Amino acid sequence: MSKSTDELFKNVISHAKEYGFVFPSSEIYDGLSAVYDYGQNGSELKNNLKTYWWKAMVQMHDNIVGIDSAIFMHPTIWKASGHVDGFSDPMIDNKDSKKRYRADQLLEDKIAKYDEEGKTSEAEELQIEMDNALKAEDLPRLRELIIEHQIKCPISGTANWTDVRQFNLMFSTQMGAVADDADVVYLRPETAQGIFVNYLNVQKSGRMKIPFGIAQIGKAFRNEVIARQFIIRMREFEQMEMQYFVRPGTQREWFDKWKETRLKWHLALGTPAEKYRYHEHTKLAHYADAAFDIEFDFPFGFKEVEGIHSRTDFDLSQHEKFSRKKMQYFDPEVNPETGKPFGNYIPYVIETSIGLDRLFLLTLVNAYEEEDLSTEEKQDSRTVLRLHPCLAPVKAAIFPLTKKDGLPEKAREIMDKLKLDFNLQYEEKDAIGKRYRRQDAIGTPFCITVDHQTLEDNTVTIRHRDTMKQERVAADQLDRIIGDLVSWKNVL
Amino acid sequence: MSKSTDELFKNVISHAKEYGFVFPSSEIYDGLSAVYDYGQNGSELKNNLKTYWWKAMVQMHDNIVGIDSAIFMHPTIWKASGHVDGFSDPMIDNKDSKKRYRADQLLEDKIAKYDEEGKTSEAEELQIEMDNALKAEDLPRLRELIIEHQIKCPISGTANWTDVRQFNLMFSTQMGAVADDADVVYLRPETAQGIFVNYLNVQKSGRMKIPFGIAQIGKAFRNEVIARQFIIRMREFEQMEMQYFVRPGTQREWFDKWKETRLKWHLALGTPAEKYRYHEHTKLAHYADAAFDIEFDFPFGFKEVEGIHSRTDFDLSQHEKFSRKKMQYFDPEVNPETGKPFGNYIPYVIETSIGLDRLFLLTLVNAYEEEDLSTEEKQDSRTVLRLHPCLAPVKAAIFPLTKKDGLPEKAREIMDKLKLDFNLQYEEKDAIGKRYRRQDAIGTPFCITVDHQTLEDNTVTIRHRDTMKQERVAADQLDRIIGDLVSWKNVL
Repeated sequence: MSKSTDELFKNVISHAKEYGFVFPSSEIYDGLSAVYDYGQNGSELKNNLKTYWWKAMVQMHDNIVGIDSAIFMHPTIWKASGHVDGFSDPMIDNKDSKKRYRADQLLEDKIAKYDEEGKTSEAEELQIEMDNALKAEDLPRLRELIIEHQIKCPISGTANWTDVRQFNLMFSTQMGAVADDADVVYLRPETAQGIFVNYLNVQKSGRMKIPFGIAQIGKAFRNEVIARQFIIRMREFEQMEMQYFVRPGTQREWFDKWKETRLKWHLALGTPAEKYRYHEHTKLAHYADAAFDIEFDFPFGFKEVEGIHSRTDFDLSQHEKFSRKKMQYFDPEVNPETGKPFGNYIPYVIETSIGLDRLFLLTLVNAYEEEDLSTEEKQDSRTVLRLHPCLAPVKAAIFPLTKKDGLPEKAREIMDKLKLDFNLQYEEKDAIGKRYRRQDAIGTPFCITVDHQTLEDNTVTIRHRDTMKQERVAADQLDRIIGDLVSWKNVL
Repeated sequence: MSKSTDELFKNVISHAKEYGFVFPSSEIYDGLSAVYDYGQNGSELKNNLKTYWWKAMVQMHDNIVGIDSAIFMHPTIWKASGHVDGFSDPMIDNKDSKKRYRADQLLEDKIAKYDEEGKTSEAEELQIEMDNALKAEDLPRLRELIIEHQIKCPISGTANWTDVRQFNLMFSTQMGAVADDADVVYLRPETAQGIFVNYLNVQKSGRMKIPFGIAQIGKAFRNEVIARQFIIRMREFEQMEMQYFVRPGTQREWFDKWKETRLKWHLALGTPAEKYRYHEHTKLAHYADAAFDIEFDFPFGFKEVEGIHSRTDFDLSQHEKFSRKKMQYFDPEVNPETGKPFGNYIPYVIETSIGLDRLFLLTLVNAYEEEDLSTEEKQDSRTVLRLHPCLAPVKAAIFPLTKKDGLPEKAREIMDKLKLDFNLQYEEKDAIGKRYRRQDAIGTPFCITVDHQTLEDNTVTIRHRDTMKQERVAADQLDRIIGDLVSWKNVL
């Protein structure tokens, strides 16, 4: 990334902290690696992103319902899903520093270094060799490459490496009441399995007919060894996943539909279309027969924000096998080809899966602007978050012009009428201009100033974040003015 | 509990499963003890309870903001809070069955048995002895009481007991990148500490002035050895906590205020006042100088739903000590007694803490009614959830009278105009009466039927859940009729 993009991203991160969006977790204890907390404005923004997704997916579709399944699940579920055996990274330890690294990451760093040094052919060759070794899961070969290319531990500076071993990314803990062998349970690495194991409970109790979907928002956990790029790769993160159950043979059609629908959802927030692209998986996961990512152009390059996966009947079939419970759906609809009902089958599944924290970061990065407001007479600038009004943490700020003459009381009176419908902020400190800047920095679409004229004619000044224009409006119109701009109707 | 209350509670549990409110977790794998999943109606009800709390606490108070801190926190935090050393239960193992029990629970079961058998004086005596032993943390004495009263393991039937030992209730897991000693981290047993360690970040970035509050909704985890009574005591559960930071010396006044405010919040939903009571803690936790529970009259007796605790400056002081970072707030307000600013101090904290799952159960139990509708001519009944309309998972169901004559299309047209504002359900199967019953069972306040007259004059039949009365209204009035009843204005 260019120097200036790099700097801009650093500024976004410090802005996120300074204005209560994202704090490093446990900061007073010098932090906990790859874990973050959402502050007062971050939690509101995140909640608004959840609401937008939930409304679009669940409320607007009468064949999609939501659930909220637990993080703890029966451990056999992760055997069935393939996570116990397959969800791992190739790791290597340096014997001197005792530090552990992802073998492929060490190699990729080396490739990047070759590129920097202009050694293009070395870079290309190593890339191919590494890809082959990863594809073949040839762990000894990965180690050989590390040795051959004289990769050293950044801490100890030595090449005294152990073997490469697979390291499972699931967190485990012990649950229970039995003295000698408490059960090992995992923290779910994805929310999807909570949907799969409940799909018949939901289908039956909700009388759902295929095609139908089950949506869920919740935490997932992965013991990432290398955590990078702020909230892009966290050990504790949040997913918004929807599993859409369809008749076998129709999965491609639904896959295409969801691929399109999901991109539209992102674009409805006004993010420029050129910032997004599809990325097709060429190497498919063991459960998939098609997979596309929706990628966003982050300051450090295009990265996945959402995945749309055609997961076939893999998961449900595995659960049938491991749980020995029937996972079939009975489809009463008549097959026009046979004249008989489609009958019993295990549905195919299309998944849409968003990393909520990445979506949050995307939203912040995309909204952040350091705007030059200089005129010929004077230098000036502001930092403004051009968040979509539906997503803004605070919808309007109410300012009494001064702290006296009954203006604070009048401002509070106006606020009390609006606060049930909108998240508001009251501020009476500092000059109005300074207060405007503080609200710009958290993306508040409206600032409302109560002045002496308000006491006479019940009008207020309303100032718009993006244009910085002010206008005088009747106080009893505020409800409608704010409501029109922040309504979900604008994006759904 | 009386036989009929017992049965009613069982019916609530099976109703909760049958209608998509609560499923046992990992049910197809024979379940995971003390863990539950929320189904399609349960997740909506739970979300509505969260919204009610968040609006009441955060949106309606301009000096309270929300955060969303991670489940993983720096392990030293739980040393500072006292959880590493003190958050444990006295456990005893039976050597024959290898089963582990809470020592106090074994004794309490014995006391209940004495009571049943009419041995009141034995019961009272044992209660006192047990309380004394618990208070003195005299583990050998607990064991003696178990032996003396000939308590046997229900599995093995023997009294071959180990010593009583303290068993920490926190789940732990290993995080990280270091080969030899991955860091042990805990799953937070309460959300409060996430607020404490962030309090200065929030205060500074949000320019908060004392008194102010920080609210949070999130998961917490406790490795309860004995999990009972459905979702009352779960290993994974959700809390809604608010920490209110006040000037030292004013804590009693704020404690009283929050005690009152919180009970009002519960009562605003229309739950009968006699179902609630305050319970004062006589034995205070190490951090508290006052504590009251708000208890609800569950079918199995009064149980805590919310705690209001005056936590003093204990937590913040401990974090100052363990993190070596200043946890003081600078209070610029002038002390009328000295004429100088109050200056630097560690705030005192009032906590309000709800167990969301208990609140959910309370809501369900309280709403559940098996109503006898029999007349002289015929026997009839219905199961209805009399949920407050603000909380109902589905606000209205739309029924075409029949599946033909364009009625489904007309019903969909009406639905499309309403679905952005309200969570709706569409149903065209079975007779209208049957459809009413299904909606009653999930607490839907309105059923709207589209019939042939609708095609002529655009009126529909609206049927009210509680009164079962039907009336004919203009379709374009539905927005207002539903909106009026389900508005948060009714409870806030």
